[in-house]
Amino acid sequence: MKQPPHIAIAGATGAVGIEMLNCLAEQKVPYSQLTLLASARSAGKVVEFQGKELVVKELTADAFEGVDIALFSAGGSISLEFAPHAAAAGAIVIDNSSAFRMDPEVPLVVPEINPEAAKTTPKGIIANPNCTTIISLMALAPLHRAFGLKSIIASSYQAVSGSGAAGIVELDSQIQALANGGEIKKEVYPHQIASNVIPQVDVFLEGGYTKEEQKMLNESRKILGLPELNVTCTCVRVPVHRSHSVSISAQFEKPVTVEAAQAVYGEATPGVQLCDDPSTGLYPTPLDTSGKDDCLVGRMRMDQVLPNALALWVVGDQVKKGAALNAVQIAKLLLE
Amino acid sequence: MKQPPHIAIAGATGAVGIEMLNCLAEQKVPYSQLTLLASARSAGKVVEFQGKELVVKELTADAFEGVDIALFSAGGSISLEFAPHAAAAGAIVIDNSSAFRMDPEVPLVVPEINPEAAKTTPKGIIANPNCTTIISLMALAPLHRAFGLKSIIASSYQAVSGSGAAGIVELDSQIQALANGGEIKKEVYPHQIASNVIPQVDVFLEGGYTKEEQKMLNESRKILGLPELNVTCTCVRVPVHRSHSVSISAQFEKPVTVEAAQAVYGEATPGVQLCDDPSTGLYPTPLDTSGKDDCLVGRMRMDQVLPNALALWVVGDQVKKGAALNAVQIAKLLLE
Repeated sequence: MKQPPHIAIAGATGAVGIEMLNCLAEQKVPYSQLTLLASARSAGKVVEFQGKELVVKELTADAFEGVDIALFSAGGSISLEFAPHAAAAGAIVIDNSSAFRMDPEVPLVVPEINPEAAKTTPKGIIANPNCTTIISLMALAPLHRAFGLKSIIASSYQAVSGSGAAGIVELDSQIQALANGGEIKKEVYPHQIASNVIPQVDVFLEGGYTKEEQKMLNESRKILGLPELNVTCTCVRVPVHRSHSVSISAQFEKPVTVEAAQAVYGEATPGVQLCDDPSTGLYPTPLDTSGKDDCLVGRMRMDQVLPNALALWVVGDQVKKGAALNAVQIAKLLLE
Repeated sequence: MKQPPHIAIAGATGAVGIEMLNCLAEQKVPYSQLTLLASARSAGKVVEFQGKELVVKELTADAFEGVDIALFSAGGSISLEFAPHAAAAGAIVIDNSSAFRMDPEVPLVVPEINPEAAKTTPKGIIANPNCTTIISLMALAPLHRAFGLKSIIASSYQAVSGSGAAGIVELDSQIQALANGGEIKKEVYPHQIASNVIPQVDVFLEGGYTKEEQKMLNESRKILGLPELNVTCTCVRVPVHRSHSVSISAQFEKPVTVEAAQAVYGEATPGVQLCDDPSTGLYPTPLDTSGKDDCLVGRMRMDQVLPNALALWVVGDQVKKGAALNAVQIAKLLLE
């Protein structure tokens, strides 16, 4: 790959696309050229970035000439249509949608967990995992390395940013209506989300699980290389703006203690920090990670049902580590 | 007990006390006299009820003369001080605090689950269980009767009403601040609750569990008569006004299927209804149960980690079935 690379962002005007730009700057990713792509509707918009004015271009099949890395965050159908064009033009695609995640020829990468997987890209595509899966595994992967992960039972508390900018707008407008009167408008979610929680993220599949819940199973198995891993997940939308939380019971192959588990986090686990001291009331909440890079782990204690198991709580910014930051970290991997 | 009884409410001006009055009316509980008791600060207040004006009296040791049933909801220390006086005066106390729940001489009653326990009251006191425990067991008890409950792994989504009227005021004031600007004031909770979730309800105990989480274990064992039942619980406060939700993985002694589990609910399970059809997107949310008597169960599916286990989601009004309604239903039991 030529250095510094020509980087393109497809879906540059969405919530994750904008955060990808921020993360490119924060992570000091070098680039020779930056191309912002979006739908015809957004083409022509001007985005200021690092003192320059970038004009958004229309995302078309021939928009990727000379592009080395193409970050996609414009939804699954856009990725299915345009990612192959980008790859055919010689770019490595880093795709934030679920379109290619389970393709055996597409690596699914969390740079702190399985960076080696990014080296083999037969289709020229690398997939960015689901946000809840990334955040959960940021807590679990260090424990897996130490104790051998056997199963996960998880319940999520997912922010509205997971539905993109529209989710945030809907929560804000409902908060306005609760505070000042007026109609509660429901366009993004099937139920009111302000002062409510909705136990459905994505569509239902056969067997009663949602697609989001099934992703936790499929993607965790692929990222950790554990085809036998069992996962029960309940994904719930909560009226929080941009950080996801997950309550997890994790069972291990080897005996585990709270002290030994807490000790696995530290300098050897970049991207995740322990935030756990019941004696001083220390544990993470979504507001603690919003706008931050690192995931935070707390509420660690022995599970009272499963043998060799821990209960724990992990929180991470959905837009950053759950999406844009992880994609930009994959781009950095490609430049090493 | 004389019929109709003289009923007193201690803590009559609190959120649960006010709801107890509503429930007495809705449940058509007969009474000869109604005495409202509260702290000296609230004494003298006039409460309108069923067309009459009731003057709140000060809660004192000799306030229970002639009282047959005393509903207490004024906090644990008030119950510890005054419930014995009420019992000594000949009243049966129904106590909503946690003060007496684990006393082996005090029955802990959910009328739909263990009504027979209310018959033996050596101390003249019956305890009303913890709200999250009641709501969880309303879903689990019918399944226990059919399949034999073995363990519970639960994560809760608890409304601010669980902190009384002050919790509701704090959420409302923070929603106002988010909508209209202004300072986020934190008096009830250690962290902002609007646009946040807090993985702490009640104080921390040794071992890293909170008292609320430990109540789920202790009280479930006592109510179901299952001293060996194992429970792992993570209790989380969410920015919802008055219904609690609980995500549960429940393991059973006997084999179970989703169809067989769904079939246990119906006319034989008063107080809990099935609300579960993924094909039409049907599941309960907190807004569906707020102000309602019945708990709703949905998202029922096979757990993918535990054998003979189901994942499910239950929602119930914290102020009603989680507190006031359950206490009033116990009073009705005493009159049968």
